[in-house]
Amino acid sequence: MAIIGFSRSAKMGVSAIVGLGNKSDIDEDDLLAFFEQDPNTNLIAQHCEDLKDGRAFAEAAKRVSKKKPVVVLKAGRTSAGARAASSHTGALAGNDKIYEDVFKQSGVIRARSLRQLLEFARGVPVLPTPKGENVLIITGAGGSGVLLSDSVVDNGLQLMAMPPDLDAAFRKFIPPFGAAGNPVDITGGEPPITYVNTVKLGLSDDRIHSLILGYWHTIVTPPMVFARNMVEVKKEMEAKGFVKPMVASLAGDVEVEEAAEYLYQNGIPAYAYSTELPVEVLGAKYKWARGAGLL
Amino acid sequence: MAIIGFSRSAKMGVSAIVGLGNKSDIDEDDLLAFFEQDPNTNLIAQHCEDLKDGRAFAEAAKRVSKKKPVVVLKAGRTSAGARAASSHTGALAGNDKIYEDVFKQSGVIRARSLRQLLEFARGVPVLPTPKGENVLIITGAGGSGVLLSDSVVDNGLQLMAMPPDLDAAFRKFIPPFGAAGNPVDITGGEPPITYVNTVKLGLSDDRIHSLILGYWHTIVTPPMVFARNMVEVKKEMEAKGFVKPMVASLAGDVEVEEAAEYLYQNGIPAYAYSTELPVEVLGAKYKWARGAGLL
Repeated sequence: MAIIGFSRSAKMGVSAIVGLGNKSDIDEDDLLAFFEQDPNTNLIAQHCEDLKDGRAFAEAAKRVSKKKPVVVLKAGRTSAGARAASSHTGALAGNDKIYEDVFKQSGVIRARSLRQLLEFARGVPVLPTPKGENVLIITGAGGSGVLLSDSVVDNGLQLMAMPPDLDAAFRKFIPPFGAAGNPVDITGGEPPITYVNTVKLGLSDDRIHSLILGYWHTIVTPPMVFARNMVEVKKEMEAKGFVKPMVASLAGDVEVEEAAEYLYQNGIPAYAYSTELPVEVLGAKYKWARGAGLL
Repeated sequence: MAIIGFSRSAKMGVSAIVGLGNKSDIDEDDLLAFFEQDPNTNLIAQHCEDLKDGRAFAEAAKRVSKKKPVVVLKAGRTSAGARAASSHTGALAGNDKIYEDVFKQSGVIRARSLRQLLEFARGVPVLPTPKGENVLIITGAGGSGVLLSDSVVDNGLQLMAMPPDLDAAFRKFIPPFGAAGNPVDITGGEPPITYVNTVKLGLSDDRIHSLILGYWHTIVTPPMVFARNMVEVKKEMEAKGFVKPMVASLAGDVEVEEAAEYLYQNGIPAYAYSTELPVEVLGAKYKWARGAGLL
């Protein structure tokens, strides 16, 4: 039921919703095998209270996740949750460490919450596969840069150590009191062209593999101006062959909600009032890419 | 900036926003002392990259948090975040374990993310102070019940062990295939009266101290019917002297967003498509109440 409202609200496509009931016949690995070859399905998201056949699931997931991301929300992680699961579906929720290992070994992205399952299902297929581990933050707000850096670590990502020549190149676009290094802090009073120049440089330099943008609402660069500029830059650079995952965090007045929506609908997962969600989605993409042997 | 958009969108009151700059004079403990006696302020939310005077902060926070909840988002938790903080404000972000201890000892609610800071600021003052640790889940969806149970454990809360007489009393209202115990699983096909009866019982029995509701969208009980009923029940029971924290998780089609909003505006923090956020807000209230010696 949560998928229905969330997907309509987020304009996320859904190829199928399957409720497995008591799994007397069809179970999780059967569905993985089915959706593996379904051309309408880009990602498989699963909520479960147990796995009927853990070995068969691991085998199928290992194969399928190389082609399509598989995201799983395992309910009954805790003792109280496991008790509730046993009275709900009769599931033996089992030792969570075993599930953790099974998911890790089979390339499954584990969601820790219902909202995360939904956000990963929405965002992971939107992002292109990164070509390496170097993540760069470009931010109009120093404070967001710090919080985004924390999120980078929390989500198993790696801030690129900034090479001196690249640092000098970024510094040409930003005021002298902006912070060098990574995050690139362009400071809060800059016009749209500063976002445009620095993001273009971030997309074009091959040493950088992913971008995280921190937007800060000003009269000089209003939310929708920022959003339209970023989508244009993305298209322009893609036409030149520079394709990289890019996510955005927006701080500001309510207009940032519309801007985030516009960015998301145009291939840049973006969130208002959060420095965590965009990085979680990027982290999920990386987890998948690593598990699938693409990194 | 994030406070501005979030608070307008969430219809959350804001008494003041203070940016401290480089803290050459006024710092965190001064502001705690000021807002301690400000009648327009019910809760103090703070984002910081360091504390200028840790000892003075701990002393002030310990005193103030007994009267008003103090929520802190400490940025620069990680090594990458600390580096970014040092180039942003010159903050020496310091050992995070020390901050963790200082916050715990002084009754501060620690937010782990920007969104959490905002959600706690919004939700904690809405909830009444619980009178004890016994949390009860009443849910129309067994699956939500399991996820809500996990969240209860994640947030340091305690599911009440269901006394046999109370179990029998709940069972009178729910179909025989509903699950007894805690969560109380009323099952998905029930009319509004089943939610009403079970929530009334939950609010009136003194052994239960807080309620978590799981709503499941059906034609029999549409989202706004559920929401209006819950607000009525809450008012009716409050008039009889039964005042308890109550939060809700709603799964369903987009109408649940409006229903969640209505519940929130009427004193029941509620979230669509999330089994975590409502429990996190309840958990924050409990952390505060424990720290303030009210539990």
